[in-house]
Amino acid sequence: MCTALSLNTRYHYFGRTLDIDRSYGEEVCILPRSFPIIFSEAGELKRHSAIIGMASVANGTPLFYDAVNEHGLAMAGLNFPENAVYFSSEGKKTGVASYELIAWVLCHCKTTEEAKKHLSDVVVTNARAHAELPPTPLHWMVSDERESIVVEQTADGLGIYENAVGVLTNAPAFPSQLENLYRYKALSNAKDGAVGLPGDSSSSSRFVRAAFGRRYSICEGDEISSVGQFFHLMSSVEVANGLCKADGEDWHKTVYTSCISTSQGRYYYTTYGNRRISCVDMHKTDLDSQKLTRFPISNEQSVRYIN
Amino acid sequence: MCTALSLNTRYHYFGRTLDIDRSYGEEVCILPRSFPIIFSEAGELKRHSAIIGMASVANGTPLFYDAVNEHGLAMAGLNFPENAVYFSSEGKKTGVASYELIAWVLCHCKTTEEAKKHLSDVVVTNARAHAELPPTPLHWMVSDERESIVVEQTADGLGIYENAVGVLTNAPAFPSQLENLYRYKALSNAKDGAVGLPGDSSSSSRFVRAAFGRRYSICEGDEISSVGQFFHLMSSVEVANGLCKADGEDWHKTVYTSCISTSQGRYYYTTYGNRRISCVDMHKTDLDSQKLTRFPISNEQSVRYIN
Amino acid sequence: MCTALSLNTRYHYFGRTLDIDRSYGEEVCILPRSFPIIFSEAGELKRHSAIIGMASVANGTPLFYDAVNEHGLAMAGLNFPENAVYFSSEGKKTGVASYELIAWVLCHCKTTEEAKKHLSDVVVTNARAHAELPPTPLHWMVSDERESIVVEQTADGLGIYENAVGVLTNAPAFPSQLENLYRYKALSNAKDGAVGLPGDSSSSSRFVRAAFGRRYSICEGDEISSVGQFFHLMSSVEVANGLCKADGEDWHKTVYTSCISTSQGRYYYTTYGNRRISCVDMHKTDLDSQKLTRFPISNEQSVRYIN
Amino acid sequence: MCTALSLNTRYHYFGRTLDIDRSYGEEVCILPRSFPIIFSEAGELKRHSAIIGMASVANGTPLFYDAVNEHGLAMAGLNFPENAVYFSSEGKKTGVASYELIAWVLCHCKTTEEAKKHLSDVVVTNARAHAELPPTPLHWMVSDERESIVVEQTADGLGIYENAVGVLTNAPAFPSQLENLYRYKALSNAKDGAVGLPGDSSSSSRFVRAAFGRRYSICEGDEISSVGQFFHLMSSVEVANGLCKADGEDWHKTVYTSCISTSQGRYYYTTYGNRRISCVDMHKTDLDSQKLTRFPISNEQSVRYIN
Repeated sequence: MCTALSLNTRYHYFGRTLDIDRSYGEEVCILPRSFPIIFSEAGELKRHSAIIGMASVANGTPLFYDAVNEHGLAMAGLNFPENAVYFSSEGKKTGVASYELIAWVLCHCKTTEEAKKHLSDVVVTNARAHAELPPTPLHWMVSDERESIVVEQTADGLGIYENAVGVLTNAPAFPSQLENLYRYKALSNAKDGAVGLPGDSSSSSRFVRAAFGRRYSICEGDEISSVGQFFHLMSSVEVANGLCKADGEDWHKTVYTSCISTSQGRYYYTTYGNRRISCVDMHKTDLDSQKLTRFPISNEQSVRYIN
Repeated sequence: MCTALSLNTRYHYFGRTLDIDRSYGEEVCILPRSFPIIFSEAGELKRHSAIIGMASVANGTPLFYDAVNEHGLAMAGLNFPENAVYFSSEGKKTGVASYELIAWVLCHCKTTEEAKKHLSDVVVTNARAHAELPPTPLHWMVSDERESIVVEQTADGLGIYENAVGVLTNAPAFPSQLENLYRYKALSNAKDGAVGLPGDSSSSSRFVRAAFGRRYSICEGDEISSVGQFFHLMSSVEVANGLCKADGEDWHKTVYTSCISTSQGRYYYTTYGNRRISCVDMHKTDLDSQKLTRFPISNEQSVRYIN
Repeated sequence: MCTALSLNTRYHYFGRTLDIDRSYGEEVCILPRSFPIIFSEAGELKRHSAIIGMASVANGTPLFYDAVNEHGLAMAGLNFPENAVYFSSEGKKTGVASYELIAWVLCHCKTTEEAKKHLSDVVVTNARAHAELPPTPLHWMVSDERESIVVEQTADGLGIYENAVGVLTNAPAFPSQLENLYRYKALSNAKDGAVGLPGDSSSSSRFVRAAFGRRYSICEGDEISSVGQFFHLMSSVEVANGLCKADGEDWHKTVYTSCISTSQGRYYYTTYGNRRISCVDMHKTDLDSQKLTRFPISNEQSVRYIN
Repeated sequence: MCTALSLNTRYHYFGRTLDIDRSYGEEVCILPRSFPIIFSEAGELKRHSAIIGMASVANGTPLFYDAVNEHGLAMAGLNFPENAVYFSSEGKKTGVASYELIAWVLCHCKTTEEAKKHLSDVVVTNARAHAELPPTPLHWMVSDERESIVVEQTADGLGIYENAVGVLTNAPAFPSQLENLYRYKALSNAKDGAVGLPGDSSSSSRFVRAAFGRRYSICEGDEISSVGQFFHLMSSVEVANGLCKADGEDWHKTVYTSCISTSQGRYYYTTYGNRRISCVDMHKTDLDSQKLTRFPISNEQSVRYIN
């Protein structure tokens, strides 16, 4: 369970919640232009766009959950169980493994428009980052300041959809989510005008709630107000511990929430344990280096004790 | 619009959102035992329990929105439009003005049990704090670690209700809210078990959502985890700017959210502009002084810049 | 479980569903002007308005569920569990037993306006029709072509409420139902404008659904079209067998639905077993007689076999 | 707007509502085995299964809305706007026009199993019954006593789906409807267990409501009880006049509701104007004739006047 959101105020902001029953050692990573990346089929890439994002690092390589490159193109992968299907490339198309698709797109493309072109020739494969990591069923939202798209590969093949509502959650497939959202088009921000808005944590309900919030959101256009508003909108789709059972014995909860200022290369985030916003700025590191910079995320509540 | 919540983990926590279209210069105030209070009908009280809470200060006296006393008794006043009716005391009962009811209860009572007794002889009057401050229509939740009650004065007189669900929002009256809540009793935290939970910002819907969250909440029992969980639960009832029109040209939004650790006398809060939790501890001031201590609240986002 | 509805087209129509887990031998009864009625406290009434309605007949006297008198004043009693409280009259007020309140009002009053006056001096008592018939907890809707009222006696005493929405179901009390209904005021008959309308069989949901239907209903003004439309509106609140469990081993279902043409004295009804509309006309009997006329209702499906 | 339902009690019943803003002269038609049918591409069929169903008759040929053949295979076409796409057959597949698909399937197949095989080679074309009749965007439910399928042709081609829930309404596509339905799986027939069931007339909401009703329906197994229960279930998805605006100046309403006893060849129906059930029995005509038998439907309320 996850929710992604793309929001334009004066600038463009992009982020997501990660709703899951455990943490996988996520870190904010800055991948500079000369960090060598070896793709599963496409081979080594020695020079590319710089990227900042949340990732698990496996064998020294970041597997991104959500990220932005230095050109302001952002992308997030969200759980898509019982729908995502990965194929073999069979040599005809460009095979990109699910775990490396974000890096692949952000290394090669500067805009959503470019991403659409590059992705049209891609097949998402089920190659593994390493032996013990079976691929997770995912779909993706790609956004720049102009537009968003959704990328889903199902049994029918790879689909690329325009996403005018700027939201993505989980299953069902994006076209179904839009159809369902459309039913709520009579809701408004008038007094009692939103009665009928669903309040549960299912994927469909979070989709409708996030799209409703994005549609009526009002805030000052400066970065701090925009980032604050972004986290307010995400509050309505975050999952509190205990309220939503996972398949096993545990509960889904919102492990972290991110908000990327795509034009500034700043990665803001909060965690379940720490409401305070943290910020990592990609431009405060040397983007021409060859070395990954890693910032482990803190889950400790940072309270401001006034007296 | 507001939502109040009473939550027991290892200790007891009590707090509220204030959802309104403007701020009234709220401050966290510590009112020590010898700060003289002049009640509108009951006259001056020279010695009483110490109190910490959020208040507007008028003529040097705090008008509390929500507060706790040193014995762990907490109380909050919430908007109750078109329902609250204030009367003249006519000398038969103890007349307490709506603006001073929180101070009056917290000065005199140590437990909810005591509050019930004291309130049974009270009539809430429409006296004004000063000439330009017409009384606001309010009702109240009073909680200690054992139980919660709701206090409402309507055209039918003063009602005192047991509140086993530990939640209060706005109109309609509390018995009606309970009846409505009862309809949702089949909802659960199973997968898709909460489908049907209302997601809008109306008073009834926030009541149901807060009660659902409180019922299924799970967290560690230590203070920091409990406070963190309290704010997570409140996230689902907070109001983001733009999503809910007020009567005039403006929008309701959650100006602040509080969480009081009632046994420790610590007042935690966040504001619309600053997600980071601030904390004021009543026991870090001299509770035997005569002087009000005031801590203006900050609305500036406190971001932790990591690099 | 039951739903009552008052509808004005060119004339006035009034009716109800009876949703229950068994039948009690209901019959359409015409009570003529000189049929002697012995009220539990008020004694014998030898001459009064003629009445037609659905009733159980106990010891030769009809106990009405819903009925109209020859002046067009209609009234129905609906289940009101956990809310209705019956008192002793203690000689100060006019004591009328719950089972005889419909007959008492329709014998004495010609309009809703008159009913309000008569009822203002009444206390509803828990006298029994006979020993084995403990009183059922009820509340009532009274309507003429101009207005509707609701009559509820709770622990707070007898309440008489204006009912501008022309609907009554069961608990909670009528003021609470109105408050809940008010939340749905943004719904409309536009495409997707009714998304958010509740679809279950709870008392609150049937109230909202019936009020929504009544608000947007359109039909020709002649009697047959009006009666047909009345039954269409009632379809949305009828309860199909199996869909709603009663307290015991059985299911609630809509045993019968009535629609009274109040100005014409015609009683139309359908039953769970027979969708075809039956009609009994009070003016086709001698209304000056002393004898009750009884028309047992049929539950056998009257199919029109065309070939 | 329409809803189709397949229900098994002791026997199998199949039917639908037709929700539309006008009537098109529907008639119950019995098409005997030797009535010659000329298909748009497949040519003339001289001998085939006998069929009974609701149809518009154009140039002497019935265009079926819903029907059953003498083997108990039933089929209905429902509006599927903005989704249905009809193609040219281009000689590779069997081209069947949308208006003739019901007749084509019921003439050739005895079971749903057979229908699946026949349909796998079909392309639905946009040929017209005659010049002034542009094809309506439709999808279909096909049912026998063992199973139901849905047939939809979209831009992706012809899809044939198993339909275990026995319901079809309108857009979105059937897989999306199932996904949406699945969200409501925690609802039940316990007291208040259905809170969350949607009550509006949108296609998605009618789908959920009909599936809920079908799941919990209980009735005696004889034909009259089963047919009665079928119409009770349909009541919850019928559309009353005025409550749901069509695109133009008029309102959708349920023009007719059918219930076919598939094993007996009896076609039961009600109309908006006449609640009484009418019945046409195919076995009361000579099924070996060459002549179409037509029974115009009546919209006049058939009231049973008792006195």
